[in-house]
Amino acid sequence: MNHRTRIIKTTGVIAAFCISLSAQLTASAQTSKKLTSYVNPFIGTGAVKGSLSGNNYPGATVPFGMVQLSPDTRDEPEWDAACGYDHNDSFIAGFSHTHLSGTGAPDLFDILFMPYTGDEKTRAGDAKQVGSGYGSRFSHANESARAGYYQVKLDDHDINVELTATAHAGFHRYTFPKNSKAKVVIDLNHSLKKPNFGCQVIAAQFKMVNDHAVEGFRVITGWAKLRKVYFYAEFNKTIKSNDLVNGGTQNFDQKLLNGTDLRAIFDFDVADGKPVLAKIALSTVSTQNAKLNLDTEIPNWNFYQTVTQADSKWEKELEKIKVEGTAEQKEIFYTCLYHTFIQPNNYADVNGDYTAIDYTVHNTKGGFYSTFSLWDTYRAAHPLYTLVQPERTAGFVNSMISQYNTYGYLPIWQLWGQENYCMIGNHAIPVVVDAVLKGTPGIDINKAYEAVKNSSITNHPGSPFKAWEKYRYIPENIQSQSVSLTLEMAYDDWCVAQLAKKLSKTADYQHFMQRSQNFKNLYDIQSGFFRAKDTDAKWQTPFNPLQYGGNGGNPYTEGNAWQYNWYVPQDVKGLISLTGGDKKFTAKLDTFFTLTSKPGEVNGNASGFIGQYAHGNEPSHHITYLYNYAGQPWKTQFYVAKIMSELYNTSSSGYAGNEDCGQMSAWYVFSAMGFYPVNPASGVYVIGAPAMKKSVMRLSPIKTFTVLAPNRTAENIYIQSAKLNGKVYTHTYITQKDITDGGVLEFVMGNKPNMNWGTAINDRPVK
Amino acid sequence: MNHRTRIIKTTGVIAAFCISLSAQLTASAQTSKKLTSYVNPFIGTGAVKGSLSGNNYPGATVPFGMVQLSPDTRDEPEWDAACGYDHNDSFIAGFSHTHLSGTGAPDLFDILFMPYTGDEKTRAGDAKQVGSGYGSRFSHANESARAGYYQVKLDDHDINVELTATAHAGFHRYTFPKNSKAKVVIDLNHSLKKPNFGCQVIAAQFKMVNDHAVEGFRVITGWAKLRKVYFYAEFNKTIKSNDLVNGGTQNFDQKLLNGTDLRAIFDFDVADGKPVLAKIALSTVSTQNAKLNLDTEIPNWNFYQTVTQADSKWEKELEKIKVEGTAEQKEIFYTCLYHTFIQPNNYADVNGDYTAIDYTVHNTKGGFYSTFSLWDTYRAAHPLYTLVQPERTAGFVNSMISQYNTYGYLPIWQLWGQENYCMIGNHAIPVVVDAVLKGTPGIDINKAYEAVKNSSITNHPGSPFKAWEKYRYIPENIQSQSVSLTLEMAYDDWCVAQLAKKLSKTADYQHFMQRSQNFKNLYDIQSGFFRAKDTDAKWQTPFNPLQYGGNGGNPYTEGNAWQYNWYVPQDVKGLISLTGGDKKFTAKLDTFFTLTSKPGEVNGNASGFIGQYAHGNEPSHHITYLYNYAGQPWKTQFYVAKIMSELYNTSSSGYAGNEDCGQMSAWYVFSAMGFYPVNPASGVYVIGAPAMKKSVMRLSPIKTFTVLAPNRTAENIYIQSAKLNGKVYTHTYITQKDITDGGVLEFVMGNKPNMNWGTAINDRPVK
Repeated sequence: MNHRTRIIKTTGVIAAFCISLSAQLTASAQTSKKLTSYVNPFIGTGAVKGSLSGNNYPGATVPFGMVQLSPDTRDEPEWDAACGYDHNDSFIAGFSHTHLSGTGAPDLFDILFMPYTGDEKTRAGDAKQVGSGYGSRFSHANESARAGYYQVKLDDHDINVELTATAHAGFHRYTFPKNSKAKVVIDLNHSLKKPNFGCQVIAAQFKMVNDHAVEGFRVITGWAKLRKVYFYAEFNKTIKSNDLVNGGTQNFDQKLLNGTDLRAIFDFDVADGKPVLAKIALSTVSTQNAKLNLDTEIPNWNFYQTVTQADSKWEKELEKIKVEGTAEQKEIFYTCLYHTFIQPNNYADVNGDYTAIDYTVHNTKGGFYSTFSLWDTYRAAHPLYTLVQPERTAGFVNSMISQYNTYGYLPIWQLWGQENYCMIGNHAIPVVVDAVLKGTPGIDINKAYEAVKNSSITNHPGSPFKAWEKYRYIPENIQSQSVSLTLEMAYDDWCVAQLAKKLSKTADYQHFMQRSQNFKNLYDIQSGFFRAKDTDAKWQTPFNPLQYGGNGGNPYTEGNAWQYNWYVPQDVKGLISLTGGDKKFTAKLDTFFTLTSKPGEVNGNASGFIGQYAHGNEPSHHITYLYNYAGQPWKTQFYVAKIMSELYNTSSSGYAGNEDCGQMSAWYVFSAMGFYPVNPASGVYVIGAPAMKKSVMRLSPIKTFTVLAPNRTAENIYIQSAKLNGKVYTHTYITQKDITDGGVLEFVMGNKPNMNWGTAINDRPVK
Repeated sequence: MNHRTRIIKTTGVIAAFCISLSAQLTASAQTSKKLTSYVNPFIGTGAVKGSLSGNNYPGATVPFGMVQLSPDTRDEPEWDAACGYDHNDSFIAGFSHTHLSGTGAPDLFDILFMPYTGDEKTRAGDAKQVGSGYGSRFSHANESARAGYYQVKLDDHDINVELTATAHAGFHRYTFPKNSKAKVVIDLNHSLKKPNFGCQVIAAQFKMVNDHAVEGFRVITGWAKLRKVYFYAEFNKTIKSNDLVNGGTQNFDQKLLNGTDLRAIFDFDVADGKPVLAKIALSTVSTQNAKLNLDTEIPNWNFYQTVTQADSKWEKELEKIKVEGTAEQKEIFYTCLYHTFIQPNNYADVNGDYTAIDYTVHNTKGGFYSTFSLWDTYRAAHPLYTLVQPERTAGFVNSMISQYNTYGYLPIWQLWGQENYCMIGNHAIPVVVDAVLKGTPGIDINKAYEAVKNSSITNHPGSPFKAWEKYRYIPENIQSQSVSLTLEMAYDDWCVAQLAKKLSKTADYQHFMQRSQNFKNLYDIQSGFFRAKDTDAKWQTPFNPLQYGGNGGNPYTEGNAWQYNWYVPQDVKGLISLTGGDKKFTAKLDTFFTLTSKPGEVNGNASGFIGQYAHGNEPSHHITYLYNYAGQPWKTQFYVAKIMSELYNTSSSGYAGNEDCGQMSAWYVFSAMGFYPVNPASGVYVIGAPAMKKSVMRLSPIKTFTVLAPNRTAENIYIQSAKLNGKVYTHTYITQKDITDGGVLEFVMGNKPNMNWGTAINDRPVK
């Protein structure tokens, strides 16, 4: 059975569910098909036959929620299943409550639940692996998922598991075989593979609250350097007996257990044939807050009501953009939109409490958002939020500023409120500047400027600003990944300058504009590439523009000189000039998209190749749009259409690489609408080739921006002409104001390039 | 120069201090010598020529305070200098703010300060050792200390360092050579030797508050599994420039630094010849609370006022017991009393906030005390607190009950509010019961009973109660140290029973009294020793009563069968009966004190030997007093006098082993007064041989209990006769009521035993 199919088998207990769920979900869907019906949570969950995947999980979550309740198909997930789930696996270790969507590194996997029948089993050779004794085989034939809902039958136990979620809580529904020995294990030691990232449980506790409830916590180190995870869980049935297990020691019917390797095993009576329901909320602050979260969000035992509520929450968010296209396009589009709205995650409790980066408890009314995979998401995901999630964007920015207040600089990669310094640069800066310059309400512009400025002058791991000021490039012998860093820091500086300009801070503006030109100091005219220098300004040799770097020890971050050749979004004109003019620039782009030579070792993050272009990783994401800047927009149209049709699909390997917390999806969402934020903070969107016949972006209750391309087909990928609000439009870009004023952008598409549209030399995107 | 001498050299800057300090301290001391003048903080700070030490530090602290500001003579202290200081060392790495007094294991050492001149030095071969570049040689000739004050000259830098403390803060006074390059380093990575106990800094931060102040924190794992240490520090002079160092990376004049290996180096101008003063407060909660602590406790820059205040705090506490004896006896006695009052430490901030064992912030008005080395201190230190520190005893007990509320059972070894499960049993139980039964105000007796009962039935690490109930002894194959555990758990159970009786919980009383007799199940009549059994009730073989155990893998905890033969404080009559009656019992005691045979390996904690008796470790502490129970009190008198005169002295090796957070000292304090709590919770104190001519224990503002032994000399160690409140007294014990009623116990001493005093068969201590 195709993993994409979401038909639920109408046999046994699952049939009963179907009727119940359908009754509740179809009422509102009868008039028009709900957008949530296009969401396929299995897209990107596992590579098919050596192809690529997104590292997405199929479990239940709500938009920007703290809880992601999803099956873990590994006892101890590693890099290759960083989200906990691999569609190629046929084993489920259990269902944990927190997951990362599409990241390259694993973490979270908190508070694993697993129902099972009979006595603990030990899989051969796995005796020491926590939880493996309870794991079960499963089949995709008996698995289904939709936005906010996941279901699977556990073959080894004959249990049907259904999961849903609220912002802070998971809701489980386990249908056991009647009269079976029904058990549920809760594992507080389930984690990424120890001791990777120094992962260890520092402390954990179970405390039986009464014969229906248990609370506790775990404190754990990992990719996030220290997390406090408190929980409060309730069951609909009496816990007949419990076994609190500490390592290898069992403690029957004890009220409490402390330790680091803890499991709780609860027995239930299922002779009545009714399912066991469990609901559990999390908090970073206390078990009391976890209980408050649970009582607030799931006050009753109506599982399907929570499923319906989750669906409604998703529907509300997905309605921000309505598109018309093929069924496949809509499945890809709405799954992408779904993936972009999974995070950033609000870790504040319902009362506003949260644990800050300095491990003190703060309170906020605006939400405390984390999961900032900024090196990825500043490119398109955050610009998308700025357009369609303005309130949450204020929450994101204010959360980043909250980190600045406590930590002295904006986040680099913030996970569960903790900084892990993953990747390079400080790309919260473009996010903050983008949000402020586009007029997002609810942000203190002066505080925002203080934050971006101090983040640009305070040395921190990966950001050696003193060297930046001294050398006007990053010397590789001071900081590796120096070419990528030089290029990306120059862009961040340009953003700081724009906000300085807005605030009439002329000296700052000039200073940061000057720094934003530092990219030129690493351009080697002879080779025609950005190359690494040392502190003596000597070029690093030997140089091979195809040679890949990783995440350290090499000038290029997860890429090569070819891929980083194009990273000057703040001054593409300057880059064209360095390259030798429009013709040489477009010729070089042509080579880039067709040069298939590869060195011996390609960085694992580089994938989804078109020539040297690697759509599977972020450094390439803006490159297709650069043809517009040099008068050949039809080539942009060609490659954008090619990527959308060839590098996205509805399979479990539907992404060309890690989905990266919404970035890979946001690229599609923008591109499918027909434009892309090459320079996210500039307020300019470069026109590509719309994939949809119609896209309507809702900007406010009374304002929309519509893109029409009624004759777009698989062949008609080229823009023949355009109109903006009924007037002929020849620019190859639109501006923020064009969008926020509302209106209609209409394209006539054709199967051949119209080389006369949008090619005037003065028609380049402005900055 | 003798390390004990506290004469301060009257040269240079030190002379200036002397005059100043003297002026302030001598005013009140002119009428009678202050008791603080007898305190010698160097006692127990280092073993002389292979003898034993107490593991005490000489630094500045106030009674029961959070801060212990003391020099660390090692870059990374280990087991052998668990307090950070070894009197045999001639190098000081710096001055950190938290230390453990007399423990066998190292931890704390938070926020190291070190003044130095010139540029950083790197000692050969030590380049990687944090802080070693700033360390200095020193000489005991230029070192002095008293209660609440420490001074040393740093030879390599020619800096005179003076330190004092308040409850939450340290106060530093550095006199630099005029016109020197004066610098102060603050090291946030200074700790016990990593990675022992899994020690690592998880996160740390410096934040420059202004040009006089810095704040920050470190989160660190270690013997305490996770500690959050926030600080706020101020200097009296402008920080001219700063260098914030992250590992090997310097950051000059930056406002902030985050990382795990952090140092801050501050430059000061000392051309005016005035000293650099620094004051710093700690908090487990936040930097804000640290600042509040500092502002509350050290609102000005009057260093010597704080010295005087610290002295006054100590004087007030030491006045609880006034003794008359030789100068040496008083030096030992008051240093012992000083050591007993160093901890438990109140970790609550001045506003009552503290971080609880589950890493949430709580608030208390009664103080949150930790540093509970209970396996040691339940024996005599806590009974001493119950008598002379009733208010703090309520604070200790309520803090323990606070752990129970959060953690499900009372503390075993609580460090900085965290449980480390060091040693065996749950000896908070006798402490709580002792305090409650002796009528300590401010404790909820019903809650106390709930806590001791649940601590006695809830399995936790080292306390397998299910096995205890099933086998009625601890089988060695279920839990090692089983003989010691069986004996000590039986005692704890007896304590629970007494509180049950007090509350008329008859069933509980009978149950726990029955459990308290479990010791009999491990008595091997044939060998005449308590021996280990397995779950099949088979004696473990081979058996050698001289063979030592350690802290696991052996039936005896840090001792042998000889030493554990006597641990039945709740039923000495029963033990005598098992042994075969009074004569066999005393004969066996005679052998015990004279049998010098040792097996190949003696446990390192066993020291201070008299035969098999090892005063250096706690299992022996009550044994000398057991002769009284079998009609030979003069032998108790002989051995108690011998221990006091031979195993305590005023040198740096003045203790026979680890001082253990007050227990080794409390033994002396009780014994010197003439009695000892063999069964701490029984309300009975067994009479030994007073060392002092007079001891006056202040029980309340209007009530005292006085022990007189006017003709006690080095030879007159035997009690000839006694009177209690003027009436002839022939019992070999006194009761809690005798003491708390107030009165006078008077002994006539002689140089030969009076075998007729206190020997009637019915004159045994009651229970």
